[in-house]
Amino acid sequence: MDKSKPISWRSRLHETIYESNTTAGKAFDVMLLFLIIASIVVVMLDSVKSYHQYGHIFDIFEWTFTILFTIEYILRLICIKKPWLYVTSFLGIIDLLAIIPTYLSMFVVGAQSLLVLRALRLLRIFRIFKLAHFLTEIEFLKTAVRGSLKKVSIFMLVVLSIVIILGSVMYLVEGGKNGFQSIPDSIYWAIVTITTVGYGDIAPVTPLGKFIASVMMFIGYGIIAVPTGIITSEMAFAARNKKAGHETCPGCGKEGHDADAVFCKYCGVML
Amino acid sequence: MDKSKPISWRSRLHETIYESNTTAGKAFDVMLLFLIIASIVVVMLDSVKSYHQYGHIFDIFEWTFTILFTIEYILRLICIKKPWLYVTSFLGIIDLLAIIPTYLSMFVVGAQSLLVLRALRLLRIFRIFKLAHFLTEIEFLKTAVRGSLKKVSIFMLVVLSIVIILGSVMYLVEGGKNGFQSIPDSIYWAIVTITTVGYGDIAPVTPLGKFIASVMMFIGYGIIAVPTGIITSEMAFAARNKKAGHETCPGCGKEGHDADAVFCKYCGVML
Amino acid sequence: MDKSKPISWRSRLHETIYESNTTAGKAFDVMLLFLIIASIVVVMLDSVKSYHQYGHIFDIFEWTFTILFTIEYILRLICIKKPWLYVTSFLGIIDLLAIIPTYLSMFVVGAQSLLVLRALRLLRIFRIFKLAHFLTEIEFLKTAVRGSLKKVSIFMLVVLSIVIILGSVMYLVEGGKNGFQSIPDSIYWAIVTITTVGYGDIAPVTPLGKFIASVMMFIGYGIIAVPTGIITSEMAFAARNKKAGHETCPGCGKEGHDADAVFCKYCGVML
Amino acid sequence: MDKSKPISWRSRLHETIYESNTTAGKAFDVMLLFLIIASIVVVMLDSVKSYHQYGHIFDIFEWTFTILFTIEYILRLICIKKPWLYVTSFLGIIDLLAIIPTYLSMFVVGAQSLLVLRALRLLRIFRIFKLAHFLTEIEFLKTAVRGSLKKVSIFMLVVLSIVIILGSVMYLVEGGKNGFQSIPDSIYWAIVTITTVGYGDIAPVTPLGKFIASVMMFIGYGIIAVPTGIITSEMAFAARNKKAGHETCPGCGKEGHDADAVFCKYCGVML
Repeated sequence: MDKSKPISWRSRLHETIYESNTTAGKAFDVMLLFLIIASIVVVMLDSVKSYHQYGHIFDIFEWTFTILFTIEYILRLICIKKPWLYVTSFLGIIDLLAIIPTYLSMFVVGAQSLLVLRALRLLRIFRIFKLAHFLTEIEFLKTAVRGSLKKVSIFMLVVLSIVIILGSVMYLVEGGKNGFQSIPDSIYWAIVTITTVGYGDIAPVTPLGKFIASVMMFIGYGIIAVPTGIITSEMAFAARNKKAGHETCPGCGKEGHDADAVFCKYCGVML
Repeated sequence: MDKSKPISWRSRLHETIYESNTTAGKAFDVMLLFLIIASIVVVMLDSVKSYHQYGHIFDIFEWTFTILFTIEYILRLICIKKPWLYVTSFLGIIDLLAIIPTYLSMFVVGAQSLLVLRALRLLRIFRIFKLAHFLTEIEFLKTAVRGSLKKVSIFMLVVLSIVIILGSVMYLVEGGKNGFQSIPDSIYWAIVTITTVGYGDIAPVTPLGKFIASVMMFIGYGIIAVPTGIITSEMAFAARNKKAGHETCPGCGKEGHDADAVFCKYCGVML
Repeated sequence: MDKSKPISWRSRLHETIYESNTTAGKAFDVMLLFLIIASIVVVMLDSVKSYHQYGHIFDIFEWTFTILFTIEYILRLICIKKPWLYVTSFLGIIDLLAIIPTYLSMFVVGAQSLLVLRALRLLRIFRIFKLAHFLTEIEFLKTAVRGSLKKVSIFMLVVLSIVIILGSVMYLVEGGKNGFQSIPDSIYWAIVTITTVGYGDIAPVTPLGKFIASVMMFIGYGIIAVPTGIITSEMAFAARNKKAGHETCPGCGKEGHDADAVFCKYCGVML
Repeated sequence: MDKSKPISWRSRLHETIYESNTTAGKAFDVMLLFLIIASIVVVMLDSVKSYHQYGHIFDIFEWTFTILFTIEYILRLICIKKPWLYVTSFLGIIDLLAIIPTYLSMFVVGAQSLLVLRALRLLRIFRIFKLAHFLTEIEFLKTAVRGSLKKVSIFMLVVLSIVIILGSVMYLVEGGKNGFQSIPDSIYWAIVTITTVGYGDIAPVTPLGKFIASVMMFIGYGIIAVPTGIITSEMAFAARNKKAGHETCPGCGKEGHDADAVFCKYCGVML
């Protein structure tokens, strides 16, 4: 890349593409959002059989999007200081995956199925949100989810154990002739049941099987309260922390005091 | 409209129709509530095939309701000061939509299907509730929902992304012969699965498909906790705010006293 | 009834039947619990076709239970001071409904179907719980449910409106040939969908129908958070109220002070 | 067992097997975790019909796992001070159940079905978690669940009553020809409905049946809020208790200071 080009040109491009404070930056974001959604819609419609007659129109659209995304990718590479860091970042990989399948489908036989990967373009939307006014909310959700991750993991492990053990028992009780053809199948059924999804493609037939299924449904119905409770109390805590405590102590300058505190809890100076 | 009519007559009509403090106003509300529900019931029964023999009875009822609602609409126009504001308001449009389909079905061929629009009459019920004793509760719910809207939107966007991407993957994994006939169809299935509805009209058949479906069910079962947590902590905050007074103590200047407090709980000064 | 019988005999019987402090009272409760459950089990098994051969055994059991319950009913009448109050109370009616069907089935032809009413015997269990150690918990749940009733009602009304309007729309979109045979049927489907039950006996077929169904699923999945939030914040409030505030003010004798209160909020006396 | 062996050898073995502080202990835990998961996977795959051709490979794996688990069981017996206490403990019984079925299947005809019991090996995973860093979280979850057990039990009893009574009513309304073949079957359907699982193997057909089903769905959809509220408020309470200190201020004697507080927030005295 030509390093002798005027910095101002590149930094202005950087501002437009990577930030959203300027008018140009906002216009770029809106256009990108529109392009991403349009390209996703084309990918979706392309898979519908009754629209296969319009295949060549979809192809034209697809190539337009791919070329535009390719230009954008190159521009991103040009105007950033450390291109390699961008290429290997999560969003950089997504950006690359958004354009590669179309090129591959031209050269490689059987790469048609890779075209579905273009659905990953949707993830590019988060790049735009990252820049928008949702940062505080995202941060809040992240804090709450991170804080409850360990507890929710234990909960999920317990659920998984229930599902594996009761699934195995159901394989014994119902057997292959009633649809529980193997232990993995029975576990799949147990997951369908305990999460209250209930497709009904496999359903217990024997009285004992129905009884065990009923117990599982009650378990699934009742314990949904546990992750909800975990995340709710974590969120209430995060919200309280955010709201309380922006008062600064005149003595030590620390924050985080309760709303009803009279003295600083760190240095004892009156607030 | 005749502006020379005595104001007292119009203002009394206004009081009866738009307010519910007077006896006449209450009677009007109750009658309207009864009429709306009765008309909805007639619309419903009219669509049941085995009752088609009673079609002419339903027609008589329908025209009675339509004429009564038309009279009410005209009266509302007469007794309000700015009729145009009412006509273009949300409730005004609903009021109009409640009577137009019946008239249209008489003149326009093929307007029969518009008759279903009469179900919108149900929304007129909210006019009555607006006037009733539920205002505080509605306000509370509105505050909580508005406060959590941004966070819930992000959550819904994440769910939508999961659904679109995993739906596309399932289209690749299962394919048309197992019911996943297109990407939109697969996404529909993914929504049915992640929201734990689980119709079972489309269900995974291959082991890999069942595995991905199981993961989606666990995701759907686990993350329902997030919007619940958001709204709950928002409601707890709104409830605390409503209960804790915004009155300031004259002695120490602190807020947060209970609604029934006579003395400041921090310094003992009378509030 | 003979009023000249010694009071002590009747009051001892009253103590045994209506209270559970004495050993006899506890034994009576345990026996009654056992009888109720056993009788429910017999009612259930009696309805299973493959057990019809044991019909006469079930009959013997049934008559034993009925006679025992009849004796209990008469004893309750004898030992209570105001029998009429008992007969017309909720639990009194349940007690009567528990024995009448069996007698009726003997005399009245076609009263067989009334036998299902015997399932109401289950409600008699709550009589025993009322006397047991669950009173505080039941009171807590009642307070929370009562406090949130109004808000939950509004929520349910909103859900009902969504269900009726979108159900009517689906009747228009899908029509009878896809299973949406009438508006009541479509509303039934809408309820099945929005509550995330999802039987799959009726499922949308057209793309537009699937889209509307997807929107309904998201609504149902998202707004479940609202009643949960209402009840949770109500319970947290009830719990806080119960925990705080058992300290009595030395000045005015009132309770209900916050845990961190220094002065009584009612009379200003230092706590 | 030879008691004359040097203690140090046995205590080192004890340390490795029962604890996870030493390097050897951690390595043992990781290896055990891997063995348990691998053995569960083999049990699962062994039940899949299309893999029956690899039966002899699974047999080899199975015997390897069984022998390794047997050695582990014997080592646990040798190095513990009170072997009998271990044998009769919950985890000891699980350890035994993990190896017995394989031996039994060799000697006893028809013991094949016992092989499913090997799925219980999964419970052995909890032995490892008990030693890991999840203790605080498990303790927190236990406290919250224990605290809400009584209230959730009452809730479940109410749900069970609704299910039994409405299930019986549905048996009367729909009858055997619509799939509600007996009261237990109808109760099974009621559980499937109220927990929002909704298989669809049994679904109401008559208008009245659909109406009752709709009511049940609304009940199930609405009251899920109750256990969630119970557990959430219990968790919030447990979290607050953990965070707020139980330290008493030497100046004013008040509790409830934050964990990081140095001075009392009420009187300013150093804690």
